[in-house]
Amino acid sequence: MSLIESSYGLLTTEPETDYVHHIALFAALLCACIVIGHLLEESRWMNESITALAIGLGTGFIILLTSRGTNSHVLEFKQEFFFIYLLPPIIFNAGFQVKKKRFFQNFTTITLFGAIGTLISFAIISFGATRLFPKLGISYLVMKDYLALGAIFSATDSVCTLQVLNQEETPLLYSLVFGEGVVNDATSVVLFNALTKFDLSDMNTFVALKFAGNFLSLFVLSTFLGVLVGLLCSFIIRTLYFGRDSTDREVSLMILMAYLSYVLAEVFGLSGILTVFFCGIVMSHYAWHNVTINSQVTTKHAFATMSFIAEIFIFMYVGMDALDVEKWKFVKDSPTKSFGASALLLGLIMVGRACFVFPISIVSNLMTKPANNKIEFKQQVTVWWAGLMRGAVSVALAYKKFTGSDEQHMEPANALLTTSTIIIVLFTTVVFGLLTKPIINFLFPKSSHVDHTQSSSPKSIMMPLLGHRLDVEPETGDDETTLEAATNLQMVFTNPANTIHYYWRKFDDAFMRPVFGGRGFISYVTGTRDVALT
Amino acid sequence: MSLIESSYGLLTTEPETDYVHHIALFAALLCACIVIGHLLEESRWMNESITALAIGLGTGFIILLTSRGTNSHVLEFKQEFFFIYLLPPIIFNAGFQVKKKRFFQNFTTITLFGAIGTLISFAIISFGATRLFPKLGISYLVMKDYLALGAIFSATDSVCTLQVLNQEETPLLYSLVFGEGVVNDATSVVLFNALTKFDLSDMNTFVALKFAGNFLSLFVLSTFLGVLVGLLCSFIIRTLYFGRDSTDREVSLMILMAYLSYVLAEVFGLSGILTVFFCGIVMSHYAWHNVTINSQVTTKHAFATMSFIAEIFIFMYVGMDALDVEKWKFVKDSPTKSFGASALLLGLIMVGRACFVFPISIVSNLMTKPANNKIEFKQQVTVWWAGLMRGAVSVALAYKKFTGSDEQHMEPANALLTTSTIIIVLFTTVVFGLLTKPIINFLFPKSSHVDHTQSSSPKSIMMPLLGHRLDVEPETGDDETTLEAATNLQMVFTNPANTIHYYWRKFDDAFMRPVFGGRGFISYVTGTRDVALT
Repeated sequence: MSLIESSYGLLTTEPETDYVHHIALFAALLCACIVIGHLLEESRWMNESITALAIGLGTGFIILLTSRGTNSHVLEFKQEFFFIYLLPPIIFNAGFQVKKKRFFQNFTTITLFGAIGTLISFAIISFGATRLFPKLGISYLVMKDYLALGAIFSATDSVCTLQVLNQEETPLLYSLVFGEGVVNDATSVVLFNALTKFDLSDMNTFVALKFAGNFLSLFVLSTFLGVLVGLLCSFIIRTLYFGRDSTDREVSLMILMAYLSYVLAEVFGLSGILTVFFCGIVMSHYAWHNVTINSQVTTKHAFATMSFIAEIFIFMYVGMDALDVEKWKFVKDSPTKSFGASALLLGLIMVGRACFVFPISIVSNLMTKPANNKIEFKQQVTVWWAGLMRGAVSVALAYKKFTGSDEQHMEPANALLTTSTIIIVLFTTVVFGLLTKPIINFLFPKSSHVDHTQSSSPKSIMMPLLGHRLDVEPETGDDETTLEAATNLQMVFTNPANTIHYYWRKFDDAFMRPVFGGRGFISYVTGTRDVALT
Repeated sequence: MSLIESSYGLLTTEPETDYVHHIALFAALLCACIVIGHLLEESRWMNESITALAIGLGTGFIILLTSRGTNSHVLEFKQEFFFIYLLPPIIFNAGFQVKKKRFFQNFTTITLFGAIGTLISFAIISFGATRLFPKLGISYLVMKDYLALGAIFSATDSVCTLQVLNQEETPLLYSLVFGEGVVNDATSVVLFNALTKFDLSDMNTFVALKFAGNFLSLFVLSTFLGVLVGLLCSFIIRTLYFGRDSTDREVSLMILMAYLSYVLAEVFGLSGILTVFFCGIVMSHYAWHNVTINSQVTTKHAFATMSFIAEIFIFMYVGMDALDVEKWKFVKDSPTKSFGASALLLGLIMVGRACFVFPISIVSNLMTKPANNKIEFKQQVTVWWAGLMRGAVSVALAYKKFTGSDEQHMEPANALLTTSTIIIVLFTTVVFGLLTKPIINFLFPKSSHVDHTQSSSPKSIMMPLLGHRLDVEPETGDDETTLEAATNLQMVFTNPANTIHYYWRKFDDAFMRPVFGGRGFISYVTGTRDVALT
């Protein structure tokens, strides 16, 4: 199979040169996104996502004009391109950079938000759409479409809110929003894949139970595979490269094995997103401590960079794709239906989110003993708001579901749902995205100033694990936790999450770290590694 | 154009899943290459190139068996894939990591070897093949084929020798081999492209002059474009990001603009290789000093890693492709012709190289005044040997020339030349590659021991700019050179290269660095950057 071959099929003259032209234009636009995004960000109102969308829209408009209304794309990708090349670096980076201590401390709440919350949101959107779409005169959707819609619009994009939140001032809120975002990504994709595999047209208890079992086994097996590959990578790097300065090989191996975990999961029919996320967590917990200090700096920033490029790539593509004439032919015929459906879905998204954020927060507050870990009402509102944006994952899922290989002859159902997805992604990213800053400032008045000065780079905030310098290593908190947990036995027993964490730490120190390496367990130190960490 | 679409065309069932299977297998093989290559390297006889070739051959053999002799590929790529995705990182990294001081000090000699030498080699191989091939009974090649052959087999691969040479002990030799390798890559590709554009069937003085002019303008314009993009990137990073901790954006911008320079050159019909090489040099001279210290570490190692992965990718692919049954059908019919042609070409390569290495060395020695800069005879032999290996560039050029879209019906000429290329690349990489270590040890007996202990990573030697740590920065030598050049005026006038270097430094300090940044010219230092360099 040639990756390039097909790119010539659709062009008339000088295919190879044209292909290079398009790549050049795309690369130039990506550069422009980064530069313009940075210039506009001075005001802190815009972000790279909005810039990339705007540049994509602008370019699409120009191409539409020059091609006389027949085309708006510089390059056209199949949805597989997103899933095979663009999504893995984004999710792997999320796992690699997640602040593990906070993530696992708030594990119960995050899982409730990310998994149960996503399921509630999915149920409400699906059910609501089933009941309300016929009232708009849209009658050609079947059960499967409604379920897919629910899964697609359960996938949130909280990057925008994370850019505005201050991690130091509101650590709980930050970790909740970040954690929910990641678990939500995984849940919605697993859900979507489980839905496409199952025939849910004649729903009964048996089918529902089987579906739930399938969903759970996907979750467990995917996590297991990710952990396994991560551990294997840690073990290889620890045993092979220890004490050598093979930075490039270490980095290559980490990149390739992370990617391998993703494609292996896809091969086995599991969720690559979940796998690569846990592979990232395991790698940052073990493998990252076995490599040279140069590899540590490089992997951190190289993974973040890949994720960054993949994200602006997706948003720019969505911007261009928004002007695809084929997709809008349907809207031209029945504009009310399309915009009505979008407005309805947006309403369902907001209601669906409210239906789980506030109840789950109350449940979580009842379970949590220390007062400073309780989720205040304005924090609940922020969590609710943060998950209203829809982004890359929704688009990728919608493309997977609704655009077949015969895009020229789009069914009305597919056209309606594709355009609705584009409208909602555009609207939430731009309008809600621009409103986020004022709303957060209103809810947390004091935090705004510090935020202005401290965090000019969105990605540097996205890196809770790292800080800006090597010697700032928030993970050191792990040891404190162990001490606390050991001395304050009462707390250990009143807080189940801490108990798990305590035993995990004991197990980790006794069995895992001696084999797979990790912080403080580098027995034959050579002086070239972990310099800043000891 | 979809990058993925076509990959389904050739498969019968479950195309998407199959595609993921193949990517998974390929990723797993790349991991295996790195691990096994490292294990085998303990002996210092093997290297990653040989390992990748062997693994590719092994995998190809297994696939050949399981597919019952119809297929040997995991993934099949068009030659464009090499040129658009794999070659740019390799060449950019070479430019980025080149030890600029040494490179420009020996600029005359390196250019003589790399440009004039490649042309001599090209002429001898083309002429020799024209005269000798008919004697083997090969009569179906035309002038264009012979010229292409000359260009293809003028492209050397000196990585193997660089892995064995010790940079500290034989700095002159190292910089000659490294520099020649890079200029040679560029020259052979420019030559090849110029040849494919020109109709040289009826050669006369006018056509030859026009060809020479075209060749030269390609050289100059490509260099100019690379310098321009590199300066633009430096300027943007200096003015936009200064004093901010936007590591990921800086790294993204450098990667994207480097790639942009390559594709822009291809769009303008220039040599992308030359462009991206000079873009790399300019970026490492200016832009690299404008970024945060984390970006400096990340870019160094991320670029080296990309180059490393691309190289093993190519060698593994060559190994698999070597068993492609289509290509060998011709050999089965007339084995003597194919192996005769390969042996003949190998002889021509050795003669062609001898015809310029020794004369140019003598000329260079006559021009050079300081005795320690003269090229001894055993160094000349090493330079000659280092350029005998053929690798990725030869393969890519041969594929570009001899494999069309209708690979199923290969002409005898194309089949002959493709198989010859594969035979020569396999033979020189494996046999000559394994002989390199003993030969270098024989020529430079003392250096071998230090080499064993100091350099376990081939790429860490490939990084003359960097050293293993940030604070080792060989470029500091630049300032000494200026001082020397200024105080010892006599030397300045006897050594033209130094004169150029002296005036360049004055110009650089007065006009370039204040605008584009660079070592020591960071006027508004914030304390977060250039920490290790001051």
